Amino acid sequence: MTITVAVPDATMRDRLLGADPGVGNDVVLEVWTTDDPPLDHPVDLVVLPYSVSAAALPKLADSPVSVIQSQALGYDAVDRALPPGLVYCNAVGVHEGPTAELAVALILESQRGLDVVARAQPSGSWERGWYPGLLGRSVLIVGVGGVGEAVAARLEPFGVAISRVARTARDDARGSIHALADLPRLLGEADIVVLGIPLTPETSGLVDADFLGRMKGGALLVNVSRGAIVDTAALTASVASGAIRAAVDVVDPEPLPADHPLWTLPGVIITPHLGGQVASMASRIDPQVRRQIVRLRSGLPPLNIVVDTREPS
Amino acid sequence: MTITVAVPDATMRDRLLGADPGVGNDVVLEVWTTDDPPLDHPVDLVVLPYSVSAAALPKLADSPVSVIQSQALGYDAVDRALPPGLVYCNAVGVHEGPTAELAVALILESQRGLDVVARAQPSGSWERGWYPGLLGRSVLIVGVGGVGEAVAARLEPFGVAISRVARTARDDARGSIHALADLPRLLGEADIVVLGIPLTPETSGLVDADFLGRMKGGALLVNVSRGAIVDTAALTASVASGAIRAAVDVVDPEPLPADHPLWTLPGVIITPHLGGQVASMASRIDPQVRRQIVRLRSGLPPLNIVVDTREPS
Repeated sequence: MTITVAVPDATMRDRLLGADPGVGNDVVLEVWTTDDPPLDHPVDLVVLPYSVSAAALPKLADSPVSVIQSQALGYDAVDRALPPGLVYCNAVGVHEGPTAELAVALILESQRGLDVVARAQPSGSWERGWYPGLLGRSVLIVGVGGVGEAVAARLEPFGVAISRVARTARDDARGSIHALADLPRLLGEADIVVLGIPLTPETSGLVDADFLGRMKGGALLVNVSRGAIVDTAALTASVASGAIRAAVDVVDPEPLPADHPLWTLPGVIITPHLGGQVASMASRIDPQVRRQIVRLRSGLPPLNIVVDTREPS
Repeated sequence: MTITVAVPDATMRDRLLGADPGVGNDVVLEVWTTDDPPLDHPVDLVVLPYSVSAAALPKLADSPVSVIQSQALGYDAVDRALPPGLVYCNAVGVHEGPTAELAVALILESQRGLDVVARAQPSGSWERGWYPGLLGRSVLIVGVGGVGEAVAARLEPFGVAISRVARTARDDARGSIHALADLPRLLGEADIVVLGIPLTPETSGLVDADFLGRMKGGALLVNVSRGAIVDTAALTASVASGAIRAAVDVVDPEPLPADHPLWTLPGVIITPHLGGQVASMASRIDPQVRRQIVRLRSGLPPLNIVVDTREPS
């Protein structure tokens, strides 16, 4: 059975063709995105560009496609934007490690003052400030999914007290997980709060003025999930008052307008949605695409379906 | 037995007096440093200021003192500067955690481009660069002492391949340690090289043009130990040629002159010797001072003697 696969750029096509073992003679690889004219022939698997907007998804309705493979983990706007008749698979296992790595990097940058030092470096400043450090601090991780757990694993050897909170209380190999009902109390006890939850109708705006107001004085909020989980105006007000610090890789809206006050507030670190964006990403997304190809060629359903707009059979 | 203890500032004196349990009525605490006039009465224990230079040590000869407690871990220049008749104790256990924490922070800052992003932040730039990341990289740790091992422990959950090298090959709970003879080969295999060794006559200038020339193209050198382990001119030349990157908390000389080219080379991160300098330091140095007081009051020898200039008995 020959299958046809559209990948978003020649680089991915060449990587897949050059791999050993190759994708096989029964696989036709072509380069196509929704920015191109609609496809005039059926394509079994469409791999989307890494940073594609959900606004591009409706254009898939103009082409005879069936299975859509995203290169992203989050799929918050997909259910409203995906045309009927498709299945949409996300990229589980590709970004959790680098995203958690960035969360820890942002924690360390803020706790050790490295953003301040980096900006002073070009002037040759040997200004030895005192910063809070991470050793001995308490960290609250909100969410125990792939990213939250990868953050917990990385933080454990740093000599910190880790608390975790999720929708329902339970125990796992790492210890106890608190219920969401405990969040108000837990917020008052943590030096650092890390958001590791998907954006859903329930989590949209979860971090509002009340949430921020319950945080310890001088505590650090870290967001590597999705910007809209945090109310940007409330965050800006809270940091501007000196109540808390923030280190955010995601923000609402993205890009954050260049004249937004958050950019220049002391105690704020902003990175431009770099969570999963590392040079090694290809080494994790390519095997996922290859695995999907093998499954489709064998007549198996694809893995990691998160949105399905086909008729119920 | 009443003992007299000199501490370098009123802050430490007040912390020790306010602790529960207190230091005891049989302990006289006074504030004194070698910048003050010589002591006119015997003092049993002198706690040095945190960032004191070895150049201040000869002045101890003018005062009737016996046991010197440093707040630092390294003691590279002490044997040449300490007057006769004294014992000098270092601060084991105080700085290893924060110094290793800074090593990991510098690795993450460089691997994720956070220095570049921090400098672009005030202009509101949403420039999404691709950086190498840490996941999947190989790290060579030079030295398996307190700092080296604390770095290894912190790096383990990041999905990296860790190699370690020390003077002699051996195995420990973490795995195999390579001999120094393997260093040339190991340097060619590592994406990141971390120095976790004390400054001694053997390690002074260890990282010279030959060492740097054996590193992988684009690899990162991290120094949180002592500046003089690295030949600053060779490092500057190597980074300027684009061969390697560097993230250094210590440099030779300190402070690095404001007009030194290293400050502004792309791929270089410099922090001003902040390894152990965190707000929580008091919570670790105070118990050490208290432990020494208890021992001296009981007639026991002090702990962590690293230089002894008394007559051999």
